[in-house]
Amino acid sequence: MTTANDALVLDAAAQDLLFREARTANTFTDEPVSDEQIQAVYELVKFAPTAFNQQPLRVVLVRSPEARERLVSHLADGNKAKTSTAPLVAILAADNEFHEELPTQFPHFPAAKDVFFSERPVREGSARMNGTLQVAYFILGLRAAGLAAGPMTGFDAEGIDKEFFADGDHSVLAVVNIGKPGADAWFPRSPRLAYDEVVTTV
Amino acid sequence: MTTANDALVLDAAAQDLLFREARTANTFTDEPVSDEQIQAVYELVKFAPTAFNQQPLRVVLVRSPEARERLVSHLADGNKAKTSTAPLVAILAADNEFHEELPTQFPHFPAAKDVFFSERPVREGSARMNGTLQVAYFILGLRAAGLAAGPMTGFDAEGIDKEFFADGDHSVLAVVNIGKPGADAWFPRSPRLAYDEVVTTV
Repeated sequence: MTTANDALVLDAAAQDLLFREARTANTFTDEPVSDEQIQAVYELVKFAPTAFNQQPLRVVLVRSPEARERLVSHLADGNKAKTSTAPLVAILAADNEFHEELPTQFPHFPAAKDVFFSERPVREGSARMNGTLQVAYFILGLRAAGLAAGPMTGFDAEGIDKEFFADGDHSVLAVVNIGKPGADAWFPRSPRLAYDEVVTTV
Repeated sequence: MTTANDALVLDAAAQDLLFREARTANTFTDEPVSDEQIQAVYELVKFAPTAFNQQPLRVVLVRSPEARERLVSHLADGNKAKTSTAPLVAILAADNEFHEELPTQFPHFPAAKDVFFSERPVREGSARMNGTLQVAYFILGLRAAGLAAGPMTGFDAEGIDKEFFADGDHSVLAVVNIGKPGADAWFPRSPRLAYDEVVTTV
């Protein structure tokens, strides 16, 4: 899996770390994941682009056994065992009131808050789109820290929102198990579509 | 902007290339972007994770002046000039019929196609979510190729869908200008939320 891609500027080791050798992990070792590691991930991926520099992503690190149990109860059955045993589990959610931050976070056009995001459904769509971009950046950031990610979308989203975001202003996007890969951590790599199946020219 | 992050495994040059020094470009040089460069990007980012290994992302490279003009007509006014002059413009869309590929792309559970995705609204939501993850991977892949990306979501989505995807089965997610950054390519870097504003622990 270490075929370097010579047309790229990114070095081959980084290509492997982020894309070619990294895999979605379903089992983990006991090695803990520290707050310092998660902060290092955030301080890197926070720079990746979104529309209007909006930053709807919120990360809830589920560390207490009691909170872990509450989270697992809302997951699809197939996701419960691995989430119960992962060293760290994070809830990734979109803050649908992100627009309140635009005057400070998008100083080129402070009025964007009111011009584009005064309506809640518009905000929710934007928070979901841009929060999902940030989920992807965060997954790659975990890999950049030498960690394996096990992102999941099989859960009762409304249940998680009610359980962990009592303000009613957040929408869960993904739940991610985080740690060092354990024994038999993944399936064999599945196929990918060929370039010509994905890219066309007009 | 080259403060290395020592808690990361990813080398400092790669951190800079993908996150710290890369910026959203609004102007470009005349240097063309080749199909080989785009294929190199795809062959790297195709490995990044999605749910059920679904791969809804479709990329339309807009190379003919006639197609470029049709695309620009559907963009927000503020996006027209830069899109008219970028070396390459790509439409990134979700294929809402991606589930037809699951039997070959997710061989662990070929029935996923019917069990989870028989209803179109469910498929559309999944295609949008996972296609958006793939948009983020693609943006970082362009940076890995030494290219600057100028992703935009300011456009008439319905207009683009009708203009470029006559089958009615695709939803545009983003339009991306691609090239080497030109003069005054970007604004000064905007702020980012602090770690404690984004990450909490329960």
